Amino acid sequence: MAEPLTGNLLVAQSGGPTAVINASVAGVIQEAGRHECIEEIYGGLNGILGILNETLVDLNDEKAKAIEGLKHTPAAALGTCRYKIDFKKKPEKAAKDMDRLFEVFQAHNIRYFFYAGGNDSQDTTNKIHQEAIRRGWDMRCIGIPKTIDNDLPHTDHCNGYGSVIKYNATTVMEVAFDVSSMATDDGSCCIIEVMGRAAGWIAAGTVLAKRLPSDAPHIILLPEVPFEEAKFLAKVKETVGALKYCVVVVGEGLKNAAGEEIGVDKTRVDAFGHAVLGGAADRLMELVQGKLNLKTRTVKLGYAQRAAAHFASETDVDEAAACGEAAVRAAVGGKSGYMVKIVRTGNRPYTWTTDVQSLDDIANVEHFPPRDWIPEDGFLPNEKFIEYAAPLVEGHLHLPMEGGLPKFVVLEKSPVEKKLAPRA
Amino acid sequence: MAEPLTGNLLVAQSGGPTAVINASVAGVIQEAGRHECIEEIYGGLNGILGILNETLVDLNDEKAKAIEGLKHTPAAALGTCRYKIDFKKKPEKAAKDMDRLFEVFQAHNIRYFFYAGGNDSQDTTNKIHQEAIRRGWDMRCIGIPKTIDNDLPHTDHCNGYGSVIKYNATTVMEVAFDVSSMATDDGSCCIIEVMGRAAGWIAAGTVLAKRLPSDAPHIILLPEVPFEEAKFLAKVKETVGALKYCVVVVGEGLKNAAGEEIGVDKTRVDAFGHAVLGGAADRLMELVQGKLNLKTRTVKLGYAQRAAAHFASETDVDEAAACGEAAVRAAVGGKSGYMVKIVRTGNRPYTWTTDVQSLDDIANVEHFPPRDWIPEDGFLPNEKFIEYAAPLVEGHLHLPMEGGLPKFVVLEKSPVEKKLAPRA
Repeated sequence: MAEPLTGNLLVAQSGGPTAVINASVAGVIQEAGRHECIEEIYGGLNGILGILNETLVDLNDEKAKAIEGLKHTPAAALGTCRYKIDFKKKPEKAAKDMDRLFEVFQAHNIRYFFYAGGNDSQDTTNKIHQEAIRRGWDMRCIGIPKTIDNDLPHTDHCNGYGSVIKYNATTVMEVAFDVSSMATDDGSCCIIEVMGRAAGWIAAGTVLAKRLPSDAPHIILLPEVPFEEAKFLAKVKETVGALKYCVVVVGEGLKNAAGEEIGVDKTRVDAFGHAVLGGAADRLMELVQGKLNLKTRTVKLGYAQRAAAHFASETDVDEAAACGEAAVRAAVGGKSGYMVKIVRTGNRPYTWTTDVQSLDDIANVEHFPPRDWIPEDGFLPNEKFIEYAAPLVEGHLHLPMEGGLPKFVVLEKSPVEKKLAPRA
Repeated sequence: MAEPLTGNLLVAQSGGPTAVINASVAGVIQEAGRHECIEEIYGGLNGILGILNETLVDLNDEKAKAIEGLKHTPAAALGTCRYKIDFKKKPEKAAKDMDRLFEVFQAHNIRYFFYAGGNDSQDTTNKIHQEAIRRGWDMRCIGIPKTIDNDLPHTDHCNGYGSVIKYNATTVMEVAFDVSSMATDDGSCCIIEVMGRAAGWIAAGTVLAKRLPSDAPHIILLPEVPFEEAKFLAKVKETVGALKYCVVVVGEGLKNAAGEEIGVDKTRVDAFGHAVLGGAADRLMELVQGKLNLKTRTVKLGYAQRAAAHFASETDVDEAAACGEAAVRAAVGGKSGYMVKIVRTGNRPYTWTTDVQSLDDIANVEHFPPRDWIPEDGFLPNEKFIEYAAPLVEGHLHLPMEGGLPKFVVLEKSPVEKKLAPRA
């Protein structure tokens, strides 16, 4: 156990928001309040960008109920960014950024740094950790896993994933009830496009909607399984023949055998000369209508799926908050250069705990669903996947309402007085 | 008060499904059980089509808890159709259909007929009512209002509308939190496409998401207000200038000054020679990205919005069930040729009752939001609209769950023995 390190804490959020990334921030703040060695609790606005700009806010100045309310408030309450410190492509700029970050850390006596994000953000956290050692600035840096894409390695799953598949699977169930109730002899098809450019975790998760073999989804197209038109159309035809309708879920990044995304049509340009991004679902609709002459409609959930706090998984929220707490405990205990991870300790009933993993093992490694969780034809993840995913959607958040609509929290964001000249 | 008419009841559903159309059927069944003059309770599968095909099911054979469960089960549990009995365009077929319908009514001694649907379905109900009089078949026909489009006249609003705007407004809130948390100096825009081809009730309803002037939605494009590109782009630019982001809601049927839908691009064809239906949101995205150079994303909720039982309005569910009950009471009381309507009796607190209106006043009349509920620039419905719409989203349904996902009801659908030869 290291000596207690006394000083201030800085937490920030990065990458695409989720329904539960704020729960991790709440966990950090609430746990930090339990440790005397942590003096001020600051938030960096818009991730690394806000630290570079010295736009810090005083999170101890927020009401306790606002912090608790973060657990049901979607998106990034502190703002997020997609800023990358890239020593390979832009070494000079990266070095300058790093200098500035440490000016800010030192000016505000930041001794604890927590960053919630996906692959890139874990990489940034690791770089800051290494730089702190190089500069001899005693600061504990811990990453908190956050990505609906669920593609971070070593953690059983990522905070945000359970909520997105709970919402998406529910949407599949509801749309299937709708489409099947209109199913007459002509037959019809509905194609639901979900997020996921590389790994198919999100699309795969909708298989939870299937309680009976005839239930939707009937076909799931994973972005990592090359799309085969003939096999797909045959399966749609077979399904409509049996049930009079077919519900297809497609990951937005679906690719053909050549590795090209099918949602991008290079042969078509819009009025401004840009390639038309019809989206995977729209292209599949053209195909099904054109080749099978089947009435087809699309649903494109887009940002709605990752922000759907109104139907978030309680398990996911609890884990996200616990990861924030675990990050603080690990740092106070002397650790730096780690990411908190979720460790599954049992399946029936589902039990879990947290641990930490060196950031050296995490950054820029993408984690895909194991090949033996997906059948030969690639269409529907099997029992192994279901055993993995089912517990993650359990439990229902109590969401405060006002006038029949959700009541989310907006932080006061009292600015911390700047101590430095503006960034050059 | 007419003499009690003894015989069987037939209920069917028609048109696009909603989150609460099953609640109306539950209301019909539960109320029918209280009247001795009603003997058997039948459902027609897939609306008029099922009656033509004599595919009736015995609703008295369903478990009581399944009937109650219909109140949280989306879409049409009895199936629906878009079949129209069109005496104008196809008089011979219409006459033949009418003969067949009355063969079925008489073979099964149907004395009470209830049809839940939108404009076309109310028209069908009226035609059957008139035909019953002409043929001297004593049968009471009552329509139940159902359409997310909210465009039936004389009723304060339509069952299904409150739930769709509750879900859509919540989605706007959540997406706005997401987009605003990513808002950096570059600015960004998100365009959410909702249903509504003619009247803008659904798009307008998302204004409920706006609690502060700076809240989303920032622009609502109603299909009945001709789209003006320059005004729209100026408003997006102004909003992004002030807030760094802009959330736009567009009704799918948005039209230009010439009355052409902007989502249909006649100049572009897909691989099969069909016009590309990019959808209104996709066309607006091209515009915003092309002319303002602003990162833009789209969400297209499609069927998901009208099937979203997981976040249905309790007010809407209660009213839908009450309309079913009121239909039975009106019919038992001797009425035929009417539609049940919802009458608002107070606003603070919101109170309502049901009444009936002659189907002669209903069929094929479309009801639009009053012009003085929409400001000069057409972008955001005003306080009058909000006072109207706000009560309709109140209350939260208790949804039974299984494994973290909704537990919907599927009826047994015991077939009623056929008494006729198959339809010619």
